[in-house]
Amino acid sequence: MENPIQRRVFLQSITTLLAMTGVVKQSLGNPTKQREPEHDMSKMPENWTGKERIAMLLYPSCTSLDFAGPQYMFGCLMGAQIYHVAKTREPIVTDTRLTILPDTTFDECPKDVDIFFVPGGGTGLLEVMQDRATLEFVAQTGGRAKWLTSVCTGSMLLAAAGLLKNYQATSHWTTRDLLSLAGAIPTDRRVVKDRNRITAAGVSAGLDLGLYMVGLLRDKSYAESVQLLAEYDPDPPYHSGSVHSASAETKLLLDDMFKDFVGKVEASLKKTNR
Amino acid sequence: MENPIQRRVFLQSITTLLAMTGVVKQSLGNPTKQREPEHDMSKMPENWTGKERIAMLLYPSCTSLDFAGPQYMFGCLMGAQIYHVAKTREPIVTDTRLTILPDTTFDECPKDVDIFFVPGGGTGLLEVMQDRATLEFVAQTGGRAKWLTSVCTGSMLLAAAGLLKNYQATSHWTTRDLLSLAGAIPTDRRVVKDRNRITAAGVSAGLDLGLYMVGLLRDKSYAESVQLLAEYDPDPPYHSGSVHSASAETKLLLDDMFKDFVGKVEASLKKTNR
Repeated sequence: MENPIQRRVFLQSITTLLAMTGVVKQSLGNPTKQREPEHDMSKMPENWTGKERIAMLLYPSCTSLDFAGPQYMFGCLMGAQIYHVAKTREPIVTDTRLTILPDTTFDECPKDVDIFFVPGGGTGLLEVMQDRATLEFVAQTGGRAKWLTSVCTGSMLLAAAGLLKNYQATSHWTTRDLLSLAGAIPTDRRVVKDRNRITAAGVSAGLDLGLYMVGLLRDKSYAESVQLLAEYDPDPPYHSGSVHSASAETKLLLDDMFKDFVGKVEASLKKTNR
Repeated sequence: MENPIQRRVFLQSITTLLAMTGVVKQSLGNPTKQREPEHDMSKMPENWTGKERIAMLLYPSCTSLDFAGPQYMFGCLMGAQIYHVAKTREPIVTDTRLTILPDTTFDECPKDVDIFFVPGGGTGLLEVMQDRATLEFVAQTGGRAKWLTSVCTGSMLLAAAGLLKNYQATSHWTTRDLLSLAGAIPTDRRVVKDRNRITAAGVSAGLDLGLYMVGLLRDKSYAESVQLLAEYDPDPPYHSGSVHSASAETKLLLDDMFKDFVGKVEASLKKTNR
C-alpha cells in the first residue's frame, strides 16, 4: 500500500469493519429478534447494508442442502430479511430428514420481494409441481420478484409455473434438458443468469448461486469477505462432481437411478404446458 | 469396456443400482419413517449399506451451513441413522436464523455412536464452551465415538472437552492456532484426519468433510456417486476463500472483525485447560 489512494480505501475499510462487527454480533447474539439495524451504520458504504426482502420456499422432502447453501449466503447480507415460506408453519422434513421450521405462510409472505428462491427435491418436488396453491404462489410472488432464483430441480417448479419461457436456465443435470418442455433454453453452466432469472445446477451449486447473489446485491469486496468468512475454498476429495468429470459407470448408475423420477417430471411439465 | 472383468464389474454396478433406487425412493418418499431397509438389498455389495449411528450436535446460534453440509452427505449413507441432538427438543435458531428441530436430547442419544459431529458457531459457541452439561455430553459420547468429527470452530468445543490433546486438527482459520492451547497440533489443511479425529476448516469445508466420511465408511465408487448426485463440482464466483488467496485488505477486515471473538475463545480454552 504505497499508493495514498489505496491507503485511504484501506483505512475506510477498517472503519467499515468496526461498524460491521457490531452488526454481525447483534445478528448472531439475538437470533429471535428481527435483523433491524441497532448500530451506527452511518460510517459504512451505503451499499454494504440493504433492506432486501428474501422469500425462500420450503416444501416437504425438498433437498436440505439446496436450501441451506443459499440461506447461509443470503444470511450474510446485512440488513436483509429472510422469510422461510411454506404452505403452513408445520415443520418441513427435508430429504435428508433435516427438519426446518418455516416462519411465514404463503398468505403472510410480502407480495413484493427482492429475491424469490426455490430449492429442488425428489418426490416432494413432484407433489408441489401439481399443487395448485404452490404453483399460484410461485407464479404470483416469484413472478413479481426483483430476482427469481432456484437451485437444482427447483427450476422445474419455476418452469411449471410458467416463469422460464424464453429464458436461459439450468437445473440438476438429470433434469436440465426438460427445461425446453416449458420453453426455456437449457444451459450447461453452474449458475445461469438471464435478465432477472438466476438458476443454479444441482444441490451444492447453491453455494455458488448464493455467493453470486451477494456480489450482485452488494459489491465484490463484500462478496470476497463473505467467501473468506465461509472459508469457501472447496477441495472435494473425489473428482466426480459433474457429468464431464464422473466416470461413465457412475453416470449410468445415477441416470438409471433417476430414470423413473425424470420420467415423472417430464410428464408433469408436459401436463402443465399443454 | 473391452476388458471382460471391467464389464462384469459394470454389470454388477447396474444390479446394485436397481436395488439402490428403491431404497433412495423409500428414504425420500417417507420422511417421517425410520430409515429401515424395506427392499431386497441382498444383491448389493455389503459395504454399500450400513447401520451407522450418527449423532450431530445442535446448539443455539450454531452455524447453519457447518451443520447442513455434512448432514446432507451423511444423509446419503443408506441405512445410517442420524440423530439431531440438542440439550432439549426446542427449535434451534442458527446464526443465519435457519431454524432446525432437534429429534434427540442428550439423555436420549445412544451412548455408542459411529460418528459424533460438532458444528461451529459464534456467540453460541462461547456459551456451550462454558456449559457443563454440553461439555460432559461431548466428552462422554464424543469420546466413545468411533469417529469424532467437527467443522469450523466446532473443534474449539472438542478442544474444550479435552478430546484433541496430541491430535493434529484444524478449525476456522481465525481460531486454528488456538488449538495448541488444548494440546492439539494446529494443521493447515481443509480436512485433517489424525487416527479417529477428523476436523475440517471453516463453514463450507463441511461438504468436503462429509464426502470424505462417505468414502471412508463406504467406498470410492459410492462417494463418487454421491458427489455426482450433489453435483459437487464447485466453481466459486470469487477467489477469496482462504487466507492464502484473499487480499490483505479482506483478511485484515475479517481479522479485526473476529478479534473480540477469538480473544474470548482463547480465554475460555485457557480456563478449561488450566
